[in-house]
Amino acid sequence: MNSTLSPSSWAMQCTAFDAPQADALRVQSDVLVVVSARGRIEAVIARDDPRWAAQRERHAVAGQLRELPAGSYLLPGMIDVHVHAPQWPQMGKALDVPLADWLQQNTFPLEARYGDAAFAESVYRPLVRQLLANGTTTAMYFGTLHDSGNRVLAEECLRQGQRGLVGRVAMDEPSQCPPFYRDASAQAAIDGTEAFIETVARLPGNAGGLVLPVITPRFIPSCTDELLAGLGALAQRTGVHVQTHCSESDWAHQHVLERCGMTDAHALHRFGLLTRRTVVAHANFLTPADVALMADTGASVAHCPLSNFYFANSVFPARAGHAQRLGLGLGSDISGGYSPSMFDACRHAITASYALDEGVDPDLPPAQRGRHNARIDHVFALWLATAAGGAALDLPIGRIEAGQQFDAIVVDCEAPDSNICIWPGSDSPADVLQKIIYNATRANVAQTWVQGALVHARATP
Amino acid sequence: MNSTLSPSSWAMQCTAFDAPQADALRVQSDVLVVVSARGRIEAVIARDDPRWAAQRERHAVAGQLRELPAGSYLLPGMIDVHVHAPQWPQMGKALDVPLADWLQQNTFPLEARYGDAAFAESVYRPLVRQLLANGTTTAMYFGTLHDSGNRVLAEECLRQGQRGLVGRVAMDEPSQCPPFYRDASAQAAIDGTEAFIETVARLPGNAGGLVLPVITPRFIPSCTDELLAGLGALAQRTGVHVQTHCSESDWAHQHVLERCGMTDAHALHRFGLLTRRTVVAHANFLTPADVALMADTGASVAHCPLSNFYFANSVFPARAGHAQRLGLGLGSDISGGYSPSMFDACRHAITASYALDEGVDPDLPPAQRGRHNARIDHVFALWLATAAGGAALDLPIGRIEAGQQFDAIVVDCEAPDSNICIWPGSDSPADVLQKIIYNATRANVAQTWVQGALVHARATP
Repeated sequence: MNSTLSPSSWAMQCTAFDAPQADALRVQSDVLVVVSARGRIEAVIARDDPRWAAQRERHAVAGQLRELPAGSYLLPGMIDVHVHAPQWPQMGKALDVPLADWLQQNTFPLEARYGDAAFAESVYRPLVRQLLANGTTTAMYFGTLHDSGNRVLAEECLRQGQRGLVGRVAMDEPSQCPPFYRDASAQAAIDGTEAFIETVARLPGNAGGLVLPVITPRFIPSCTDELLAGLGALAQRTGVHVQTHCSESDWAHQHVLERCGMTDAHALHRFGLLTRRTVVAHANFLTPADVALMADTGASVAHCPLSNFYFANSVFPARAGHAQRLGLGLGSDISGGYSPSMFDACRHAITASYALDEGVDPDLPPAQRGRHNARIDHVFALWLATAAGGAALDLPIGRIEAGQQFDAIVVDCEAPDSNICIWPGSDSPADVLQKIIYNATRANVAQTWVQGALVHARATP
Repeated sequence: MNSTLSPSSWAMQCTAFDAPQADALRVQSDVLVVVSARGRIEAVIARDDPRWAAQRERHAVAGQLRELPAGSYLLPGMIDVHVHAPQWPQMGKALDVPLADWLQQNTFPLEARYGDAAFAESVYRPLVRQLLANGTTTAMYFGTLHDSGNRVLAEECLRQGQRGLVGRVAMDEPSQCPPFYRDASAQAAIDGTEAFIETVARLPGNAGGLVLPVITPRFIPSCTDELLAGLGALAQRTGVHVQTHCSESDWAHQHVLERCGMTDAHALHRFGLLTRRTVVAHANFLTPADVALMADTGASVAHCPLSNFYFANSVFPARAGHAQRLGLGLGSDISGGYSPSMFDACRHAITASYALDEGVDPDLPPAQRGRHNARIDHVFALWLATAAGGAALDLPIGRIEAGQQFDAIVVDCEAPDSNICIWPGSDSPADVLQKIIYNATRANVAQTWVQGALVHARATP
């Protein structure tokens, strides 16, 4: 623990839950979380630490103490590592149409509209606001091809105080991209990506690096080799984050095998696109060699359990990946996933893992039905959505401990529309956390904090 | 349409969504829903019906017109056909422990406490209130073995105005039930059940039959043959509803096969327990002959997709069952399911069906992975949760049309904590409904109506 507390710090007295490891729930009861003026956690002082009373008094006298009321708890902010920002208007829509229609008739025409900065603002402003209201303190966003729209998204993150990783999407392969929505050439896409990296670096107010740029080839099928190689070189040269999709579905996996003569992961690696700051979405069909390669490079998977059901023909085996040192994070995959809530993503990660473990078809004999040791529990899910995501993004977020940024949420179990039913006589703190993970909604997110700043507070009736 | 409208009727001007058939969404735009003083829908008058303006005027002048604001929609009330009322305090808890521990260390000790009427009231009062707040207008409840607790549950339904089907649980098989929570004998359980049927019939205020009794053998493994036969005779004699569990898991299915020499469904039929008013929960492992038998008897299945993931070793094939004329309804299965929201149940029904359709294990070849034609969509899910449930219960509820009870909810897409994002320029009414089904939470349930009475109104900030 850092023993030097800055004079300008403030403190929150609370019970904090986090999951620093995949199978380890940490309950810090009635602690003082001391936060620096720049938003870093300086110390978490335990109730039985001799400094607790003095530090509480010091902050109280200075008017720098916040106490959470009974029934409210501090959790790390949710880290959503896969969001298609321009798809926000169609969230929860057109999930009943074939994939080709979903893409060509709905998604691409919608994404093509973000050259219009006013339209972009009309979408991205409520998007960021509503993700913050749901407790998402960090989002890794796919933007679009448009400089103007992507800049609006980055500005909205800054303006509203969300930690945002924003990607300028690149896609130039004529056979896969519609004429109204593709890059004019590989070089144009590379130049556009490089320009966007510059744009983000120079955004007024972004000296602290709250918003980061991301190199974003949509996925191998929609990019030419020239584009992929150019973006890989840019990633190696600049060290900025990379995001793409990888082996999501039978079709995508097979398409890349045929085109590249190797798997998605190995092809991405060949192009220089697997780095310590790479997040590939889905990755359901990784081979054992792919998993080993990704673990060696330090690249991570954005597990998107909800959209797996709709688009991935299978469930990503998260527990097995973790056992093989694969980096992981959790994604809503808006709008391939219909929900903006990372609590929903946690719950879907659990149910999907149970489906994988038990199998689904009652007409098969039990021994042929499932794939055992695939289950994850609510603690693993919380870890995925917080500490794992922080590690995947190579950022000091996702845990409530000294040295981390104070990116956190206050969950109010007694909110007016709460479905979390706590029975004080019989629920342990661990039970309370389990009930939170299983039933928290946006209505329970009383406060959202990013880098020490209060960026959302729920209206109270 | 009923052309005689009673003078004491009132009317709601609204756009109503319902799903009278499994694959048929009905949008009734800007209609007048005319409701009798006794809570029955007398007419749904279309906007282009010549009577619309006159009826609107008549009700407005009489102060008997309610207009839903823009962004609010009328849906049938949610019908939850499988709720374990006494398990409410452990909802969202202990889902990470083995089934034996869940039952013996958590569930049975909790259920054993409901001989204490004060404890029962401390649970059942918030249970009914919170289900109403989530939009559940009708619930089919498993109670406990206790006359006192079950009476409290029935009284709470009446007091708060929820349509409740309440079952006195019967379980007397010593090898399966703990000594502290089982019926003393088959006859004692039969007598207790008969007495509870009388109790409900005589409850003050229940002349309209808002609360109905249910014959409730827990499931075959926990009941002796004598008990099952006695309850079957009671069902045949009285015609009251029946509920139980059926072929939920590999273990349960196999256990009954070995004990009875036949499947669960056939054994229940032999005991006289499959009637037009029977709802069996889960039924994942029905054989084709079981499905045919159930369709012939008119008995229905409570599909509980969420608890399927945790306890049923598989996904119930809802679409196939429907194609074979099997009656269906949707259940939360609190607390085997962690969520009290039937919107969650709708969503889990959809994702479970996709998992069944596509399969889950990416290491299997696509052809061996899934079971095709298993998918349901959001309209099927809405139908399951409303019209199908009404048919399963043999009650005139679940649709917005003349002759049905006015059991309905108002969904406010613009509620403060809403995750439903409507884009007026591009979302059709059918899109709006899809977005409601995919993202509605309790926060969107502005009003809940049962039999024409407003039984819940959301507090506004």
